[in-house]
Amino acid sequence: MSRTIAALATAPGIAGLNVVRISGEKAISIADKCFVGKTKLAEAKTHTIHYGNFKNGDTLIDTVTASTFLAPNSYTGEDTIEFGCHGGNIVAGQIVDALLAAGAVMPEPGEFTRTAFLNGKLDLTQVEAVADIIHSTSVAGALTSARQLIGEFTQRLKELRHGLIRTAGLLELELDFSEEDIELIDNSEVRARLVESQKYCNNLAEKFRASEVLRSGFIVAVAGFPNSGKSTLFNKLLQKNRAIVSEIEGTTRDYIEEDILLGDIKVRLIDTAGLRETEDIIEIAGIKLVESVLEQSNLVLVLNDASKGFNQSDELFITLKEKYPNSEFMLVQNKSDLLDKTADGVFVSAKTGEGTEKITDKIKTASKSSIDRLNDVLINKRHADLLRRTSLEIQRGIDAIDANMQNEIIAIDIRNATNTLGEITGDQWNEEVLAEIFSGFCIGK
Amino acid sequence: MSRTIAALATAPGIAGLNVVRISGEKAISIADKCFVGKTKLAEAKTHTIHYGNFKNGDTLIDTVTASTFLAPNSYTGEDTIEFGCHGGNIVAGQIVDALLAAGAVMPEPGEFTRTAFLNGKLDLTQVEAVADIIHSTSVAGALTSARQLIGEFTQRLKELRHGLIRTAGLLELELDFSEEDIELIDNSEVRARLVESQKYCNNLAEKFRASEVLRSGFIVAVAGFPNSGKSTLFNKLLQKNRAIVSEIEGTTRDYIEEDILLGDIKVRLIDTAGLRETEDIIEIAGIKLVESVLEQSNLVLVLNDASKGFNQSDELFITLKEKYPNSEFMLVQNKSDLLDKTADGVFVSAKTGEGTEKITDKIKTASKSSIDRLNDVLINKRHADLLRRTSLEIQRGIDAIDANMQNEIIAIDIRNATNTLGEITGDQWNEEVLAEIFSGFCIGK
Repeated sequence: MSRTIAALATAPGIAGLNVVRISGEKAISIADKCFVGKTKLAEAKTHTIHYGNFKNGDTLIDTVTASTFLAPNSYTGEDTIEFGCHGGNIVAGQIVDALLAAGAVMPEPGEFTRTAFLNGKLDLTQVEAVADIIHSTSVAGALTSARQLIGEFTQRLKELRHGLIRTAGLLELELDFSEEDIELIDNSEVRARLVESQKYCNNLAEKFRASEVLRSGFIVAVAGFPNSGKSTLFNKLLQKNRAIVSEIEGTTRDYIEEDILLGDIKVRLIDTAGLRETEDIIEIAGIKLVESVLEQSNLVLVLNDASKGFNQSDELFITLKEKYPNSEFMLVQNKSDLLDKTADGVFVSAKTGEGTEKITDKIKTASKSSIDRLNDVLINKRHADLLRRTSLEIQRGIDAIDANMQNEIIAIDIRNATNTLGEITGDQWNEEVLAEIFSGFCIGK
Repeated sequence: MSRTIAALATAPGIAGLNVVRISGEKAISIADKCFVGKTKLAEAKTHTIHYGNFKNGDTLIDTVTASTFLAPNSYTGEDTIEFGCHGGNIVAGQIVDALLAAGAVMPEPGEFTRTAFLNGKLDLTQVEAVADIIHSTSVAGALTSARQLIGEFTQRLKELRHGLIRTAGLLELELDFSEEDIELIDNSEVRARLVESQKYCNNLAEKFRASEVLRSGFIVAVAGFPNSGKSTLFNKLLQKNRAIVSEIEGTTRDYIEEDILLGDIKVRLIDTAGLRETEDIIEIAGIKLVESVLEQSNLVLVLNDASKGFNQSDELFITLKEKYPNSEFMLVQNKSDLLDKTADGVFVSAKTGEGTEKITDKIKTASKSSIDRLNDVLINKRHADLLRRTSLEIQRGIDAIDANMQNEIIAIDIRNATNTLGEITGDQWNEEVLAEIFSGFCIGK
C-alpha cells in the first residue's frame, strides 16, 4: 500500500514561516495541482527551490516556495515537496486541506519518519534520536542525540553484532568439519570474545540512568522519617515555599516535584512522604509512591533529625542504600543548628539554610559526573532492556562453554544474542515495537 | 550600514521541523563557517538545497538542509540561507547562537521584512499583508491578505496615483505655454477625473470597517436601558451563562465580550452596561465604555423592555442611530412573551429564547454582507486615514477648479493628494511610519 501523506511540519503559532510537507508516490503530481510557478514541479530537478502561487482551485491561498526532494534523496526516501508558506494559524491549514482534497491523506503520528525507517533511510536508534532531539530539554541532551543521529551508535552496535555473528559462524562451520576434527576457533578464544561483548553491553546498559538525566533531568529525592524537615529542606533548595510545612507528621502525602536549573543541568527535586518504622525492621511498604520515586532517583538525600540523635536514621540510610544500589545517597543531619557537629553526614539547618550549599554542591557534582560518564549515546529504556537481555544470552553462551557443551548449543546462544542486538537498530523488528516507538511522534514528523 | 541578521523563522515548539534564516552581505560566508556539506555554500547555485552537518566549532549541532537564495532573488533581496533543522526547543536555538557567534546579529522585530521593503521587494501594503496573513484568525481574512500580497491593491493605487500625477503634469505644462494660451486639458475634464479619483478613495476607505470584520470579527453590541434583559439575551445568544444576570439595575458594569463562530465568521458579542436617561434628553455621557463599544460595533441590538411599553426605547434607538451612522441597528422587543406582538422591531423573549433565532439570522446576514462588500483588499486604519486625507486634498482641488483658481493652485492640491497616496504603498515614507508598521512583527520575519 502506497500512501501520499501531507501535514504541517513546523510548530503552529505566530511566526514568519510555516512548512507543509507532502511525501509519497503522488507527491509531485498532487503538488502540481496546487502550485503555480514558472516551472512545473514534475519538470524540476531534485533539491531545487521554486517560487509561485499556491492555489486551491481558483482561490489563491498564499505565495510560497516549493522545495523538491526526489526519491530516494529525501527524508522519507520517497518523492517529497516542502511548501514554505507564511506563518500563523490559517494559511498552512488551508494548504494542507488543499493537498488532502487533491489526493493526499493525513499521516499517522510519526508516519514520515516511519516511512524513512521502512525505506532504510534511518535505523531505529536514529529514529529514536530524532524524537529525542525534538523533545530534548537540555543542550547536552540535544547534542548527544544529534551525534546519535549521524549513526555512530548504530555503527558500533553493528560491529559488535557482526563480531558475534562471525564467532557463531565459526562454531557452526566446525560442525561441518566435525569428522575431520578441525578446530577453527579455540573455545577459550570464543569465551574471551563473549566476555568482552558482554562487558560492552553491560557498559552501555548502565548508561541508561545517565541518559535519563539528559532526557528528564537529574532526580534528587528528599527522604527520611516523618517530621525530619524534608519539606523545609525542599523549599529551601527550591528557594520558594512550594511544599506545605507543618510539625504534624505526614503533612506531605503525595510526593511533590519541582524542576530547578543547576549549572546546565535540569534537576528534578522530589519531596517524599515520611517513611514509617515498624517494630523490628525498617519498612517502607505501603508507601509505594516513595518506593517508585527512590527507584528512579539519581541521588537520595536521607534526612536525619539530629535533634533527636545523630544515629536515628543510620539503619534507614543503610537499608535504603542496599535496596536502591543504582542511586547515590547522602546522609543529611538536619536541625544541626541545635547541636555540636561531630557525627557522620552533612550538617545543615533546613530552617535557616545553613549548610545547604553543601547539598547544592553535591547535586551539581553528582549530576555533572553522571553526564560525563556518557560519551555519545543516549540509552533509552528499550535499548537498556535489550542490552540486558543480550548480556544474559551471552552469559548463557559463556555458561555453555564452561559446561563443555557442544558447539551447536553455544552457537544458538550467540545467535539469540545477535537477534536481540538486531532489535535495537531495527535489523530485526516487529509492528509492536514500531508502534511503541512512533506513538510519541507528532503528525508532521 | 549593512547587517547580517539571523533568527528562527518558524514558531517555537515541539514539531518535526524548524527553520533558521540568515540574511545579509555575509550570510553565505557566516553560514559556511558552520555548515559542512559536500558543497561549500559559497559555490552553490541559488535556489538549491544542500544536506550536511551544522557545527559550532567541533561540536555537531544537528544534521540540516541548507537552502540558498542569492541576492537579489530572496525574500529580503540579500543573500539568504535557510537552515532546516529538527524541531523542538533546543537545536534551533543552538544554530542561531552559532550563527551569532560567527558574525551575524540578532534582528529587530520585522527586520527581514523591513529589509525586503527597503530593497524594493515588497511595498508597504504588501508588508502589511504579510503581517495580516500571519495574524489572521479567519480563512476569509487570510485569503484576502494573500491576494493583497501579490500586489493587485498596490497596482491599482499606483494607477490612481499616476493618473493624478499625469493630470497635475498637464496642468503644470500649460503654465509653460501660458503665453501661447494653449489648453492641454479642459478644466471640466480635470474636475471629472478628480471626482472619479475621490470616489475611488472614499470607496476604499469605507471598506475599513468590513476589513476589521475579517481581522477581528463582526462586532455585535447589546445596548438598552437598565434591566431591559441585555445580559439574559447575551447569555442566550452565547448559549452559556457568561454574564451575571440579576433584576438589580446596573448589574453589568464593565462590558463583557465573547467570541462565537457564526458560519465562517467570528462574531464578537458585547454586553454593555445599561444606558441612563436624564430629565429631558437621552444621554450616554458618563458611560464612556459603552460609547467606545458602540463606536466600533458593526451591529447594535437595542433592547426594549416591551413589558413597560413598546415605545419606551424609540427615542434611544433613533438617537443612537444618528450618533453612530456607521453601525447597523436593530430594535429588539424583549419580554414579548408577556404581550401582543403588534409594535415595531423584532419580538423575542431573551428568557425563553423564543424569537432569538431572528437575531442570529440578522447577525449572519449582516456579517456576511459586510464581508461581501470587500472584494480583494484589506483596508487597515493607516490606509483608511490616508485615503480620507487624499479625498480631502482632492476635494480642495475640485473646490479650486470651481472657484476658477489658477492651474498652479489646482496642481498643488493634486500633488498633495499623490504624495498622500504614495504613503500608502511606501513610495513616500518616513522612519516613524516604518517603525509603527514593523512594531507588530516577530523577530524572525
